[in-house]
Parts: sequence; C-alpha cells; structure tokens
Amino acid sequence: MAESEFDIIQHYFSGRQPGRADVVAGIGDDAAVLRVEPGVELVACMDTLVAGVHFSETTTAAAIGHKALAVNLSDLAAMGAEPAWATLSLSLPSSDADWLRAFADAFFELADSHGVQLVGGDTTRGPLAVTVQAHGFVPAGEALLRRGARPGDRVCVTGTLGDAGLALHKRAGVSPGLQARLDFPQPRIDAGLALRGHASAVIDISDGLLADLGHLLEHDQLGAALQVDVLPRSADFLAGLQSVGAAGEALFYELPLAAGDDYELCFTVPEARCNEVVRRLAEIGCACTVIGVVDEAEGIRCHREDGERYYPTSSGYRHFNETG
Amino acid sequence: MAESEFDIIQHYFSGRQPGRADVVAGIGDDAAVLRVEPGVELVACMDTLVAGVHFSETTTAAAIGHKALAVNLSDLAAMGAEPAWATLSLSLPSSDADWLRAFADAFFELADSHGVQLVGGDTTRGPLAVTVQAHGFVPAGEALLRRGARPGDRVCVTGTLGDAGLALHKRAGVSPGLQARLDFPQPRIDAGLALRGHASAVIDISDGLLADLGHLLEHDQLGAALQVDVLPRSADFLAGLQSVGAAGEALFYELPLAAGDDYELCFTVPEARCNEVVRRLAEIGCACTVIGVVDEAEGIRCHREDGERYYPTSSGYRHFNETG
Repeated sequence: MAESEFDIIQHYFSGRQPGRADVVAGIGDDAAVLRVEPGVELVACMDTLVAGVHFSETTTAAAIGHKALAVNLSDLAAMGAEPAWATLSLSLPSSDADWLRAFADAFFELADSHGVQLVGGDTTRGPLAVTVQAHGFVPAGEALLRRGARPGDRVCVTGTLGDAGLALHKRAGVSPGLQARLDFPQPRIDAGLALRGHASAVIDISDGLLADLGHLLEHDQLGAALQVDVLPRSADFLAGLQSVGAAGEALFYELPLAAGDDYELCFTVPEARCNEVVRRLAEIGCACTVIGVVDEAEGIRCHREDGERYYPTSSGYRHFNETG
Repeated sequence: MAESEFDIIQHYFSGRQPGRADVVAGIGDDAAVLRVEPGVELVACMDTLVAGVHFSETTTAAAIGHKALAVNLSDLAAMGAEPAWATLSLSLPSSDADWLRAFADAFFELADSHGVQLVGGDTTRGPLAVTVQAHGFVPAGEALLRRGARPGDRVCVTGTLGDAGLALHKRAGVSPGLQARLDFPQPRIDAGLALRGHASAVIDISDGLLADLGHLLEHDQLGAALQVDVLPRSADFLAGLQSVGAAGEALFYELPLAAGDDYELCFTVPEARCNEVVRRLAEIGCACTVIGVVDEAEGIRCHREDGERYYPTSSGYRHFNETG
C-alpha cells in the first residue's frame, strides 16, 4: 500500500483521543498495558465485519467504522458492562486517505461518546475486513448472562425491530431513517446498565429476534410464547412497507422476527419487576416492549392478537431450530 | 458454509480446555467475563494473519492455527507478561472439517502449553484470515516497554535470526528445521518473564531486527552500533545457505538483519547487568547474544568484525529509516 502500517496508524489512529487514567500504555508498544480496578470484572468480546458478507460495496467508510465498534459495544451492553477500551484490526486492499479518514472519524466519534479508548491493534494489507475487540467492566458478579431466564418471566425488547432488515431488503428507495438504523446502530449501553440487578437474562439482537431469543432460552431448556402483533415497529418501518407491495404483509411479521442487524437488547425479567424495568428504561429514553412470556413448552411459539398461531418462514427461525 | 457458525464453535472450539479459575464466563455468551487479580496489570495485543499476505496457499492449517496465537504470545513475551486468555476471529471461505480440526488442534496445543484459555471470538464466512487477541498479566508497573533504552546499554537478541527468512527465500528444498521456524515459531514467554526488572527496553522481532530495533530506539531518539558477524545464526541456517549459491554471502548478513518472522526478543540491558541476564536466560535454556551497543549517534550502524561498515540493502532498513 502507499502508506506503511506505521504511517496509517500514525496518521489516522494515534493521538486522536484523551487518554483514560486506566491506560498505562496504549498504541505504540507490542501490547497495551491496562489497569482493572478491584471489585470489577473484565468483559471482553470480539466481532468481525467482512466486505461482501456483513456490508456491501455501497456501504460507506463511515458506516463501517461506526458499525465495527457498535456491534461490539452492543455485546458489552448485553452483559450490562460499562465500555472502556477497544483494539482494532483493519485489513485493507489499499490505503485510500479519504476512506481511512472517514472510517477513523466515525470510529472515534462513537468511541468518544462512550468513553472508549483505542489502545492497540493491527493494520494489514488484505481483503477489506475489520475486527474489533471491546473491553468493559461490571461490578463483580453482576454481569448479565444469556442463562438465567425462568418460566413466567416476561420477554422484552428495547427500541424497534425490523428497521435494518427492511433497509437491507429494499436496497433502493430506503428512507434516511431506515438506512441509519442499518449503517449506524446505536449500542444500548445505558439500557444494559439499567438492567443490571433486574433482568434475569439478556442477549443482543444481531441474528434476528427468533434466533437470539432462541440462544437465550436454550441455556435453560425453556420456550416462550410471543405476541407478534405487539412487536415494536418504527414509523419509518411502517412507511417503508407501503412501497413493497403485496410482500409487505409477510414482511410486517418476518422482518421484526427474523431479520438481524437491529442491535436492540432482548431480555427476560420476572413478572413482578417488569413494570419497574419498563419505567426505568423510559426514564433514560429507551423504549421497551413486553412481547411474550417464558414457559416450559418447546421452542418459540408465535401468536397473532386473535390468538391464531403464526408460523414464521424465515431463516432466523430455521437457525433457531438448528441450535435449540 | 456447510456448518453454521454455531456448529463450528461447538464442534471445534468449545469444551476443549480445562477452565481457568479467573474465567467467570467463556465461550457461549455475548462476551467473556474475566477476573483480574489485584496488583497486576492487564496486557492486551491483537494480530491478524491474512492468506496471501502472512502465509501462502501451501501453509498448513496447523501452521496457521499455531502461528496466529504464537505471534500474539510473542507480543506478550516482549512485555514480560504471563499469558492468560485469548479470543479468536476466524474468517473462512468454506467449512472444511479436516482443515478446522488441524487448525484447532494446533491452536489449542500451543494455548495449553502456555495455560491460555480461549474465551470467545467470532467465526464468519469470508476470505481466509485469522485475528487473535491475547491477554496476559504483569505485576503493576513491571511491564517491559519499547522505551527505556539508555546510551551504553547492550543490545541483545534471544535464539537465532534469519531462519524463517531463509525458509521463505528458498521456498523449495527447505530443511524441516528451517520450515518449523517459519511455521511454528515458539514465543519467548519464559525469556520475557526472566527479563522483568533487568531489561531497559524490549521488542519482539516480527518485521526484522533492523526495523524492530529501530522502533525501540526511536522512542528515546537513540542509535546503536551492531556487530553483524556475531548475529546468532543456526546450524540449519548456515547449512541452508550452502545451496543458494553466490547469493549466500549477501543473505548471511541480510536475512538475520532484515527478514521478519523470527519472533525472537530484542532487548537492551545496562552493561553492568548484561552478564547476569545472559546467565539467567541460559539457565532457562534460552540462548542470548550481545550484538551491539546503544549510543546517541543517528540510526543503526552495522560493522563487520574487521571494523568495516556494512550497509544493509534490505527493506527492513528502509522501513527503519522511514520511521526513525
């Protein structure tokens, strides 16, 4: 590439952020040296975005820079963790200054908004791909896990579902609101923190509601009954469905149930605490919808408001069947 | 791919290792939950290997699995850190059971030999690439950094140099010993631990001696004089040079100076402690050679045993000039 690895790190990634007090050594040594305070546990996750798989040729550098970090922060949110540090591996076919600047600007804008410092990583020549590892903290013993749901617990989701899926489905004529939901997902960090001590189990919705709720329930060999008419759908989503014709009716259910990339949180909460949790989330500006109940029956069963069963057809559901 | 991400993780990566006591939650949740003991600092690094860039079509799955972890453990070694956990992102064009088994076996063999637990990661479809993040511990304040060298300090290297470079250069007719040095580098963890409290600055040799020593010296705006005839060369290296004809004479100097992939440690140590450090390393079976002296002149100057200057021609040196 025109610029060496060293140049790229120097020009676009070094010295961009105020240093956190817990970073003893950041970018520029063989490894970062980091301080973890007593009484907290470290939460660490890693996610990779690959060109042609997780994003398309038309995805902007800013969207890739934002999303590569956002999907990891979403995992921290699902653990109830407070974000702290990130490392970044960037594989690039060539070094394009405009691309790198837009990528780095979006990465750091999201990082700064959550107090996350980039402390190391790697840049290399290769097919376009981005791997981020994010680190955060939880008070010892308070991490929110996928296991822990109990029969009778309410199933809840934050925000709205299906927006990113509809943007992907339509490809053209996508409203700015829907496009932003696909390209610039906002990790539910504050919601995750608010759920500590209240939710019985939490997962983030990256593969689709049915798939991810399935992962959560399988830990305790439980099932759930969902109300598919109450699934939260945004005004942008409903408006966008108008222009897809007859397919709109199926997509009204399928996308919120099975499309991925929403990065909302799906969680279970004991019935007695459900109203309090909804109120706490509302206080921090996070919508929350009760969509079902955990039970001991097999799998996830979907119902319309008239009581009729609804049978999803999408891959999200098959994925759940494979693994549950 | 034939197997889903979930299947691949289950079949090849889950339940392969005894659990470390400091892993609260490992593979299988949104993120790992990890405990860091009081009094230690966390050391974290990330390195990526991309097909066609860091390894070739003929590189075996075992070599890729080993090396992806080894290059990260080498970074921990250069910090004087004791390894603890790893995360793995694996991008695969297809799921080949034999390939995955060989990759995972080699990864875990190296991991187990250093007490490293795989605690999470990501598998995805895409061009073949592997990113590993490794985590380790150092007593607070004792990490070995790149900065800290002083004029008069001795420059030392562990093991032998140029082996991996010669294996890459020859391609065919490579002895098993040289090939193993390229494919299965052994991270110098024990040497890194032994250098704590003694070395003034440490770096691992991944880009070549001149480039990496240059990174170390640039932190303190220092130079060094090196003796190129005393650079440590293995019997396999010297035997391998016999068959490359007239080029052998140049390679005798160029490969130990500038070829990468050796993953030895290069460090500086105050003259008064030099003999003790060499003895400590010998006690743990790690050869160590004094190859030069840090000074305040510009750049790295190479000398033959007759006192004549030697001017390297390789990219390693140019890389150093770019960045020093």
